[in-house]
Amino acid sequence: MDSASPLKRYEALAADIEASIRSGTLRVGDRIPSVRRTGESRGVSASTVFQAYYLLEARGLIRARDRSGYYVAEGGSRAAPPEAELSSQPDGESVALDISEHVFSILEASMTREVVPFGSAFPSPLLFPLPRLGQILASAAKKLDPWSTVDDLTPGSVALRRQIALRYLANGVNVQADDIVITNGALEALNLCLGAVTKPGDSVIVESPTFYAALQALERMGLRAIEVPTHPREGIELDALEQAVVRHKPAACWLMTTFQNPLGSLMPTAKKRALVELLTRHGLPLIEDDVYAELYFGDKQPVPAKAFDTEDLVLHCSSFSKSLAPGYRIGWAAPGRFARDVARRKLTTTLNTSVPTQLALASYLERGGFDKHLRKLRQTLAMQQATFAQAVGHHFPEGTRATRPLGGYFMWVELPQQVNALELHRRALALGISIAPGPVFSATGGFAHHLRLNYGHAWDARSERALATLGRLAGECANGG
Amino acid sequence: MDSASPLKRYEALAADIEASIRSGTLRVGDRIPSVRRTGESRGVSASTVFQAYYLLEARGLIRARDRSGYYVAEGGSRAAPPEAELSSQPDGESVALDISEHVFSILEASMTREVVPFGSAFPSPLLFPLPRLGQILASAAKKLDPWSTVDDLTPGSVALRRQIALRYLANGVNVQADDIVITNGALEALNLCLGAVTKPGDSVIVESPTFYAALQALERMGLRAIEVPTHPREGIELDALEQAVVRHKPAACWLMTTFQNPLGSLMPTAKKRALVELLTRHGLPLIEDDVYAELYFGDKQPVPAKAFDTEDLVLHCSSFSKSLAPGYRIGWAAPGRFARDVARRKLTTTLNTSVPTQLALASYLERGGFDKHLRKLRQTLAMQQATFAQAVGHHFPEGTRATRPLGGYFMWVELPQQVNALELHRRALALGISIAPGPVFSATGGFAHHLRLNYGHAWDARSERALATLGRLAGECANGG
Repeated sequence: MDSASPLKRYEALAADIEASIRSGTLRVGDRIPSVRRTGESRGVSASTVFQAYYLLEARGLIRARDRSGYYVAEGGSRAAPPEAELSSQPDGESVALDISEHVFSILEASMTREVVPFGSAFPSPLLFPLPRLGQILASAAKKLDPWSTVDDLTPGSVALRRQIALRYLANGVNVQADDIVITNGALEALNLCLGAVTKPGDSVIVESPTFYAALQALERMGLRAIEVPTHPREGIELDALEQAVVRHKPAACWLMTTFQNPLGSLMPTAKKRALVELLTRHGLPLIEDDVYAELYFGDKQPVPAKAFDTEDLVLHCSSFSKSLAPGYRIGWAAPGRFARDVARRKLTTTLNTSVPTQLALASYLERGGFDKHLRKLRQTLAMQQATFAQAVGHHFPEGTRATRPLGGYFMWVELPQQVNALELHRRALALGISIAPGPVFSATGGFAHHLRLNYGHAWDARSERALATLGRLAGECANGG
Repeated sequence: MDSASPLKRYEALAADIEASIRSGTLRVGDRIPSVRRTGESRGVSASTVFQAYYLLEARGLIRARDRSGYYVAEGGSRAAPPEAELSSQPDGESVALDISEHVFSILEASMTREVVPFGSAFPSPLLFPLPRLGQILASAAKKLDPWSTVDDLTPGSVALRRQIALRYLANGVNVQADDIVITNGALEALNLCLGAVTKPGDSVIVESPTFYAALQALERMGLRAIEVPTHPREGIELDALEQAVVRHKPAACWLMTTFQNPLGSLMPTAKKRALVELLTRHGLPLIEDDVYAELYFGDKQPVPAKAFDTEDLVLHCSSFSKSLAPGYRIGWAAPGRFARDVARRKLTTTLNTSVPTQLALASYLERGGFDKHLRKLRQTLAMQQATFAQAVGHHFPEGTRATRPLGGYFMWVELPQQVNALELHRRALALGISIAPGPVFSATGGFAHHLRLNYGHAWDARSERALATLGRLAGECANGG
């Protein structure tokens, strides 16, 4: 799918109806509004509505009944699996880390285009306006003022920092251009922030399950992890968090409050506010990894915890890698009171971020078009999630549960207890299918029968076959095969 | 100066004669070869030779005597200062570090285009073919295969690694494309390598004086520094090095064997071989910072210590930032047996290096033209060094000594003992002139009356005035003013 061309009207309409079905607004057997009524209410032609209905019918979501119109298909023809429940019960200890070797051997196996990328951490690069960005980069590169290679040293291009600050402003977050440090992707921002608020031997609170890169960073820096139970829909449990803070006196928290990796959980706004209040009471810095913030499926962008940061204790990190420009490696930190230290750490570790790419992104953002691209990206991902969830429901063994995140491109799948996810990973990889097995998301060995699946790639016959194969393998594992 | 146009023939000829004068091959009063003979031996027209001689005359280096031809001008009109001597006498202890605050306050003051950049770490961005690179980046960006943003993950673009490996090959160093990890500039390469061979609390051998970024990296990682005396012309003293190895059992060395920053010293090839043999006997990894390798003024590129690395113990680090593409942030490590660990550290700290810029540099190198650009760059820097050295000799107080490196763009200046370089730095900065005072190049507080000066910017009336001012201030400091 080429995002340079906008999502077609009938595709957008189909996505909306699909969302209504999966959210339960429309149930099995419900009649879909007539072609004429839908055309009127949406302001589109009858043929657009027909195309949308045909598409939904082809997907098995609705079916025509005689001459009386369209109805939601039985059992949705393929129902999504039940929602995942809180399954994280870490023992609350602070642990030293030794997971990197394990994680690497699993991740490196998946880093090839030949493998079906259900285990990948990245969405399809075809979802992004890379041709348009290329043109703008071309123009920026040709006009490059040589002195900008000196002037745009860390904290980074003023033009780009200003554009990022404008986006914070639009989302109601008080971050100014001067508060921002441009980095080589969000991962560098997160690592710099972690270095700024800890010293070796300190403990850091993370979610359970958590993004493996957080565990790798803690391990590399000689830090200890405290894993705190995290709800698959609403994020980290605040009571458990406060107990851990009191008991372990950690140096910081590293959390994803919006579309957490791997759960996809979205912490409700009031809970985010309560989180920041809790941490502020304890004077505890929060490193907020917010790389999926733009990938929401609802009407309104979720606000980050940073929005409630009255004491400049939240180090907010994000990037354009998942929203606009994969491979360009442009991210940033808004590190609050730690901004100066973060900038200096950047200066002494990687000095600076590529100047032409910084200027290209600034130019792209100045010209407009980012929001239009994002609308289409969100619709596409929402649609792919719906299709993917139904396929999981169809192919995976009974007892499977899964999260249905309100954004992002990850789904957390809980398989029957007998399934060993690492064994499933090995078997799937042998057949050219990658998954991210649950154990890589914990330092304490939990999530033995869980997976993270990536639905950020176009759904096609190859994915359908691969997911069917994966479901079959999971069934075999469940039956002790 | 725009390096897109090649150095003109007469400029190249003038540079060569200037080099002969400053090296002592031609002495005051010597007759310069006649126009006809020079034209014949160089294969250029008489008018080219005349232009070269006029240029040298305008610079006060030669003068016409009646009708008998050109002679080296008296006293060179402005002689360079005497060569610096070994002045580094660290006490050989291993020390914990606390220099960053100090260094930052000095460096940050110089980071503005308004200040005369004698203290800068960077050469003029006008020395590089940025317009041509911009065109190639434009072309690479427009043709970008979206999947390259996935495929060219760390260790980096195969095309670029291959081009780098070809340059190693041409210089007689056995490094293959698979041995290379592309990084966000050399500084990231050095930091990753340091992380790969040390753990907190370890000691690391550095030169005295040493590049402050090495001290900053050691400090950040909780490492101790052992400063070893380093000769201003021939690099680190091997006897002292071996004593330090035996006494302190360090985890690694971090050295610049070619055009050391700040001295400009070039370790002779035989000494490099002996260095590697010494370290290999002790099983000690060498992090070789080789960012100035391409900036040699002689006929032949110096080989790095890496050339003698039979045990894969040398972690060779370099970049294109000082030779081709400032601001692009493309560097690399050839970390020998530590390559896998270095790649993994890259994956967990900054994930990947900007893909379009990697592909642009690969494309530039494939097309050819790099060597031509480098020849001109080297000639320009050699010429600027000669002019700069003469100006230092002219304006600085008696008793001043300076290094005359055979490459790079730094000169190490030893002022009369009474001069406090930090005080001089403050006074100069107040007048809009930056310098890099000696104390930032040591963790033990040496080099109180030393400076590093940058001659990598075009010499013009502003630089002449600024250097005169600096010399006057140095004289005032020397006289207790």
